[in-house]
Amino acid sequence: MKKKIITGGTIATATDVFKADILIEGEKIVQIGVNLDALEAEVIDATGKYVFPGGIDPHTHLDMPFNNTVTDDDWESGTVAAAFGGTTTILDFCLTAGETKLSDAVEKWHKKAEGKAVIDYGFHLMISDLNEETEKELPLLLEQEGITSVKVFMAYAKEFQATDRTLFKAFKIGKETGAIVMVHCENGSVIDELVEEAIAKGNTAPIYHALTRPPEVEGEATKRAIELAHVAGATLYVVHVTCKEAVDEIIKAREKGYNVYGETCPPYLTLDQTLLAKPGFEGAKYVWSPPLRPKSHQEPLWNALKAKQLQTIGSDQCSFNFNGKKQLGLNDFSKIPNGGPFIEDRFSVLYSEGVSKGRISINDFVDMISTSAAKIFGLFPQKGTIAVGSDADIVIFDPNIKRTISAETHHMNVDYNAFEGLEVTGEPVSVLLRGEFIVKDKQFVGALGGGKYIKRQLGKGALSTLEAVSN
Amino acid sequence: MKKKIITGGTIATATDVFKADILIEGEKIVQIGVNLDALEAEVIDATGKYVFPGGIDPHTHLDMPFNNTVTDDDWESGTVAAAFGGTTTILDFCLTAGETKLSDAVEKWHKKAEGKAVIDYGFHLMISDLNEETEKELPLLLEQEGITSVKVFMAYAKEFQATDRTLFKAFKIGKETGAIVMVHCENGSVIDELVEEAIAKGNTAPIYHALTRPPEVEGEATKRAIELAHVAGATLYVVHVTCKEAVDEIIKAREKGYNVYGETCPPYLTLDQTLLAKPGFEGAKYVWSPPLRPKSHQEPLWNALKAKQLQTIGSDQCSFNFNGKKQLGLNDFSKIPNGGPFIEDRFSVLYSEGVSKGRISINDFVDMISTSAAKIFGLFPQKGTIAVGSDADIVIFDPNIKRTISAETHHMNVDYNAFEGLEVTGEPVSVLLRGEFIVKDKQFVGALGGGKYIKRQLGKGALSTLEAVSN
Amino acid sequence: MKKKIITGGTIATATDVFKADILIEGEKIVQIGVNLDALEAEVIDATGKYVFPGGIDPHTHLDMPFNNTVTDDDWESGTVAAAFGGTTTILDFCLTAGETKLSDAVEKWHKKAEGKAVIDYGFHLMISDLNEETEKELPLLLEQEGITSVKVFMAYAKEFQATDRTLFKAFKIGKETGAIVMVHCENGSVIDELVEEAIAKGNTAPIYHALTRPPEVEGEATKRAIELAHVAGATLYVVHVTCKEAVDEIIKAREKGYNVYGETCPPYLTLDQTLLAKPGFEGAKYVWSPPLRPKSHQEPLWNALKAKQLQTIGSDQCSFNFNGKKQLGLNDFSKIPNGGPFIEDRFSVLYSEGVSKGRISINDFVDMISTSAAKIFGLFPQKGTIAVGSDADIVIFDPNIKRTISAETHHMNVDYNAFEGLEVTGEPVSVLLRGEFIVKDKQFVGALGGGKYIKRQLGKGALSTLEAVSN
Amino acid sequence: MKKKIITGGTIATATDVFKADILIEGEKIVQIGVNLDALEAEVIDATGKYVFPGGIDPHTHLDMPFNNTVTDDDWESGTVAAAFGGTTTILDFCLTAGETKLSDAVEKWHKKAEGKAVIDYGFHLMISDLNEETEKELPLLLEQEGITSVKVFMAYAKEFQATDRTLFKAFKIGKETGAIVMVHCENGSVIDELVEEAIAKGNTAPIYHALTRPPEVEGEATKRAIELAHVAGATLYVVHVTCKEAVDEIIKAREKGYNVYGETCPPYLTLDQTLLAKPGFEGAKYVWSPPLRPKSHQEPLWNALKAKQLQTIGSDQCSFNFNGKKQLGLNDFSKIPNGGPFIEDRFSVLYSEGVSKGRISINDFVDMISTSAAKIFGLFPQKGTIAVGSDADIVIFDPNIKRTISAETHHMNVDYNAFEGLEVTGEPVSVLLRGEFIVKDKQFVGALGGGKYIKRQLGKGALSTLEAVSN
Repeated sequence: MKKKIITGGTIATATDVFKADILIEGEKIVQIGVNLDALEAEVIDATGKYVFPGGIDPHTHLDMPFNNTVTDDDWESGTVAAAFGGTTTILDFCLTAGETKLSDAVEKWHKKAEGKAVIDYGFHLMISDLNEETEKELPLLLEQEGITSVKVFMAYAKEFQATDRTLFKAFKIGKETGAIVMVHCENGSVIDELVEEAIAKGNTAPIYHALTRPPEVEGEATKRAIELAHVAGATLYVVHVTCKEAVDEIIKAREKGYNVYGETCPPYLTLDQTLLAKPGFEGAKYVWSPPLRPKSHQEPLWNALKAKQLQTIGSDQCSFNFNGKKQLGLNDFSKIPNGGPFIEDRFSVLYSEGVSKGRISINDFVDMISTSAAKIFGLFPQKGTIAVGSDADIVIFDPNIKRTISAETHHMNVDYNAFEGLEVTGEPVSVLLRGEFIVKDKQFVGALGGGKYIKRQLGKGALSTLEAVSN
Repeated sequence: MKKKIITGGTIATATDVFKADILIEGEKIVQIGVNLDALEAEVIDATGKYVFPGGIDPHTHLDMPFNNTVTDDDWESGTVAAAFGGTTTILDFCLTAGETKLSDAVEKWHKKAEGKAVIDYGFHLMISDLNEETEKELPLLLEQEGITSVKVFMAYAKEFQATDRTLFKAFKIGKETGAIVMVHCENGSVIDELVEEAIAKGNTAPIYHALTRPPEVEGEATKRAIELAHVAGATLYVVHVTCKEAVDEIIKAREKGYNVYGETCPPYLTLDQTLLAKPGFEGAKYVWSPPLRPKSHQEPLWNALKAKQLQTIGSDQCSFNFNGKKQLGLNDFSKIPNGGPFIEDRFSVLYSEGVSKGRISINDFVDMISTSAAKIFGLFPQKGTIAVGSDADIVIFDPNIKRTISAETHHMNVDYNAFEGLEVTGEPVSVLLRGEFIVKDKQFVGALGGGKYIKRQLGKGALSTLEAVSN
Repeated sequence: MKKKIITGGTIATATDVFKADILIEGEKIVQIGVNLDALEAEVIDATGKYVFPGGIDPHTHLDMPFNNTVTDDDWESGTVAAAFGGTTTILDFCLTAGETKLSDAVEKWHKKAEGKAVIDYGFHLMISDLNEETEKELPLLLEQEGITSVKVFMAYAKEFQATDRTLFKAFKIGKETGAIVMVHCENGSVIDELVEEAIAKGNTAPIYHALTRPPEVEGEATKRAIELAHVAGATLYVVHVTCKEAVDEIIKAREKGYNVYGETCPPYLTLDQTLLAKPGFEGAKYVWSPPLRPKSHQEPLWNALKAKQLQTIGSDQCSFNFNGKKQLGLNDFSKIPNGGPFIEDRFSVLYSEGVSKGRISINDFVDMISTSAAKIFGLFPQKGTIAVGSDADIVIFDPNIKRTISAETHHMNVDYNAFEGLEVTGEPVSVLLRGEFIVKDKQFVGALGGGKYIKRQLGKGALSTLEAVSN
Repeated sequence: MKKKIITGGTIATATDVFKADILIEGEKIVQIGVNLDALEAEVIDATGKYVFPGGIDPHTHLDMPFNNTVTDDDWESGTVAAAFGGTTTILDFCLTAGETKLSDAVEKWHKKAEGKAVIDYGFHLMISDLNEETEKELPLLLEQEGITSVKVFMAYAKEFQATDRTLFKAFKIGKETGAIVMVHCENGSVIDELVEEAIAKGNTAPIYHALTRPPEVEGEATKRAIELAHVAGATLYVVHVTCKEAVDEIIKAREKGYNVYGETCPPYLTLDQTLLAKPGFEGAKYVWSPPLRPKSHQEPLWNALKAKQLQTIGSDQCSFNFNGKKQLGLNDFSKIPNGGPFIEDRFSVLYSEGVSKGRISINDFVDMISTSAAKIFGLFPQKGTIAVGSDADIVIFDPNIKRTISAETHHMNVDYNAFEGLEVTGEPVSVLLRGEFIVKDKQFVGALGGGKYIKRQLGKGALSTLEAVSN
């Protein structure tokens, strides 16, 4: 494969910002330096642009069945949109509910992705129940498939909700195997009762989705997951943190030395609960869980990001068309499919609202959008940074472009955009995946099925021994 | 100047760990890559070793008068010892007490360093009092001298203690100029009363140094500094945090989005208060302020480091011989000169107790020992990282060597070592300052006066705009 | 009925301490004053003694089946022992598990007590499950029977544990009816897993009872109960708080204005976890739930009592003989019946450890041992104080007697005493129930069946309107 | 003296509520009972009314010089207004600033009160500075004069502000003597700087009084006082707590078992900061320190009262006419005399906003308005309750009357009322001081100079030994 050299750009990692050239050979970065010898190399001019490591989205749901429907973005549209958005690796949730063998579920998920994915990917395994069989299968599967993370839900009784016993067992397996345990923290039992009560009272509009899932039930469940993980000795990753109540618990746990990480998502940082009360049935576009919160919760989330108490930004991509899908809940908010389309704008919204508005530094941005997820989920140093030896997953980003987010221009296969009308500063111009362009000058040039499944290592924050690197 | 190439090592930054060569041209790193072209370059073999950015020690007192004596390490012995210990830049405190003009103090400090310093250095300005003259002079001086940090003491009434009014004025100047305000947080007034009471009761032994400065007065003063800084709108850097009480306040402040950083020091992480009660007068060797704490305070400090709620490791180097100096307080602990010899072992102790013992990752280590200080104090990206364009300040570190710390072998000009007998894993083998060896295979090869004074930028965490880098 | 006059004593209520006579007419206190006219009255000399309101024990389990056994104290021995200990009213838990109709359970409980109880009593209703029938029956029953409190367990999966859904429903009923909801806060699911794990590993000794129920699972469950109660709008009463983790949550909730009360018990204030590790099988004597904690948890409990953040002292009487009963768990700690014999010494231990040792005031003592329980559980002002119009439930207490607690001298029907050997200061000398002696000069003079069932009002802290009193 | 009997009323203490008669003989309550023998007694009909212990106001400034002026209420108008408001004892602050001997200050204060006070009173001693002389004099004076409380200011540099050293010395004396140390918690040094800055910028309107004293400086100073008191071993009483920041610190301290009490005042519970921004110069009427806060601080104060984390309600009476006095600051808010007229409405406002609105119980009300202050400040059981042997200081209160507070009808000697227009429910109808009417059917019938100076005991929460009562 021909060499490539990226010149003139400003390279930003989670630590550094500097001007230098990058030499790519095959799939890897092989040199970083001033005035690199470009002989025989394809030259890519990045003057005036940032050169970022490819974004890593640790939280997507593509081609996922939910209730009696399925998400509208599959592995084709979803990963193409991700690529446009500067994301080169996703970690998608593999559902196991309804499968006798966990490996069958994984097999099914591989099939969904194969031949479609245009970016690299891995799987988290969703655990709803554990029996003697699956308790034995799980550790083997984690090793064989390089799935070093599992996810447990504390809500969605009808679909996924695990008992505390199962949750605790999952933490024990996490402790034994080193796998990280991701948890959706909401008290589903309380929510189900509140939902039934609301429906019974005729409170069927979308806003009741938010009102029946108050922040207290997220804070409670977060505390519960934290203490159970701690007693088991496991590492916990709290997905989609939305509110002060949950942030407080995470900070207190970390102060005590607990192994707890937290993720938040762009909508919680920028949108608020009033959107669910939009006239007509418009509010349904903003129905996902946990729900949007009152605006006052945004500042605690930004503060926690700035103080490094939340580490990652997931998209929680889980898209359903407004027409036909969201409308299933026209007379009953609890029938609105939960989820929204975020895979494409995760990167830009965080850059624009975070870096451009001065809330976080450029290094923190890279850390949150890529590096931390790579380290926590065992992709590092193959992914998540710009360093010699790492995959040449690179985003060339113009920080000066202004554009307005809209469903008319986005690449997701869904008929609305939750950020519709938001003006953002900065845009990925070109994106390379393992040394090959997949987006070039804002045009998709990748190949269906060009993305590879990544068997992951155990996440350890970072390799911590010289030997691990030397070998 | 001849080129140098460091080959075979494992480069570690605050984000990355990878094997690659480093090409140095003049004072700068110009390339990082695999199999770099070594033509005409001096080859330095780092196989089996870590290649770290040079340590940055943000907290030293060299050649400093205190009471009626002076520290035993001046800019020669102090910086030589620092070099051996893997530190290539120090930030020393320039005393202004007793000077009419602040610039006179700075001039005096330049003279102390010139012709002696073997590593690079900058100054923090210590502010005891502010009058109309100095309030005007300070901003000018900060700009002209590149001194982007000032320090205020809340203790030491006889020497340095500022009133709350002065402290608050300093924060206001911090807000106006962008300078960071460092604060020694102990309630000196309470301490003075407790000390007088102890002496009056005949409690004159060294242990009373600790007992008259309880953690509560550090926690109180930390909270006070935090709130005053916040009201003024300044950025606060709490020096030498020693106890749970202070850590708690820092974490709470950061949770609220306050701009607060915290530093701790190796002795607080590894030694404890019982040492001050050693038989005879031995306890005097461990007299510094804030004092060593009961062992239970160590875990909160490590937890805070791990959770990134404390950011830096300072040595608080301030050495006095036991014989002749510490002994001044033989009959009255309050006459024992406060301070200890730490400049040399800061790097090794943190590596050994932190990384080798699995408490922090290798990247966190680099961040704490070098990068964070560089960013906070405006040395970055010139210092504090291994990146193209940065100064070639480099430590080649053998992580497998075991050695026992001892006054017999250390390079500081002081007759004891507070870590005497501590076995550490890992040692700096060679150290480069701006591309030149100053320590080579454990031999000092630098030059007196070879260190340069660094005019610093305003610290911003990191450069946050593309323009800043491009220009 | 002849009048009685108590002269010469020092009357102590939750507010007052003063010397005065008390005139009793029938069952009631009718006058309090100096030199009351004693014509025709039986004179009781209380010189040099305290005159307290009768103790109210809000937490007993008499004649209660558990696993395949039953407590050794029934309503005869249990209430006689209570009388000796200065308690004149108990609130016992009526089990409903296994009953189709809640009213059947209440009927059964009435039968247990009738003809035996020598002191007054009421019932709390224990709720393990709620179905459509019981959800309808419950509010009616509460009203008809004057049972203004229900209890829900978050542990004991095999016996009583409610789901979060049932717990939340109970809180909703609490909100609707005004009944207070009492909760046993431990995460039973985690405990069951830990217990199975311990047994599987051969860890069968009594100490594993404590080690498989760590404070974290109590803290977690307490937080959960607090948030669920708050979302439902109910008043929560946390039974038997044992640890700092739970206290912290209660204090935080009260700071936010939540309606939360907390109870602790004498063993948690005075005994610790090391007792479960006594040689042989002795540790089984100290097996109850939540378990005894490390000694460091005692101070937070005392502090919370002193600061009025815990309000009541329950005995959690639930006695099983060591021989024959506790020994069921000789080879498996999980088969040891949970509970201990505390109904007799609750009053004396709190007085001795609390008042005599200067930890709480005499008024706080009365509040905790009697008044607060009366107010919270709707017995006030009939019970819980010494005031005109209240029942003449009175304890004449000699604060100077010293005695040593022992199974040899106690009146409970159980073969050991958990406080064996503890020397206490102060002892009830005589006890009156509604104007009649039941203990006189340390001799039991009451009548089997002399105790009355009390239909309670809704607890409101205190009557808050003039009208309520006037009518 | 003729006996009096109060019949038909509902007696409320901090614990009890019951209907009974009260027999008064001389200055004392001698009997409480049903159908007391009224022979030869003057009968006072209290049917339909509450019978409360006389209010105790622990925080007044009568006839106090401030800057170059003096408060408008002296011991005549002030105590008459207090009597109308249901207060029968005040504790006034005796200024010592400017006196060589503390006893001279006390002498001066006695003279102010003598011949004027219509209710009972005691003094707190204000300490601005301590030298060798006054350090010796203070303990003697406390004992001789029965002044068992001192007060220290952390603000008002020009008038009263103590250094931390003096504050700490005061705590040490508090520890030695048992005296309680009251502290005004605001960081005066920061405030002075902010005030100068505001004036320099032309920000001279009353609202800047609030803006230059932000809650952070109250929270900081509260924490400081708490830790200093704790280190010294003293009991701390934080006067006029106004904000969440201060409440938080008090709660945390009490959770740790510190001896800390907190007082708040009616305006902080009911009025807010926007009043200082009223058009014209009206805002000056609301200038006192600490200042009124944004409305969001009221709920934390009410919550803390309800949870018994704040114990008392002081008026902080310190009245200055709007005309002539407040107007001194027409062009400079810092020249507005600090203080407001609250002595008369303290009782009614707390009853109306607290009890009538369901925020606190009737018992809590009595506790806050009277009993707690009596216990903390050593007046109990002579004052602060309705009990046999206590002074017959009694308020007959009609809970059904509605009236509107107004300067036109109040009895204070000041030309405005900060609660102007507030409708309150409930009013004192008659008030007895030591058995004699001072207000009868809303008419003043007391005598100038009828109030007695009370030498106080050490406050201990409550008498805690039988001996103390018996003797």
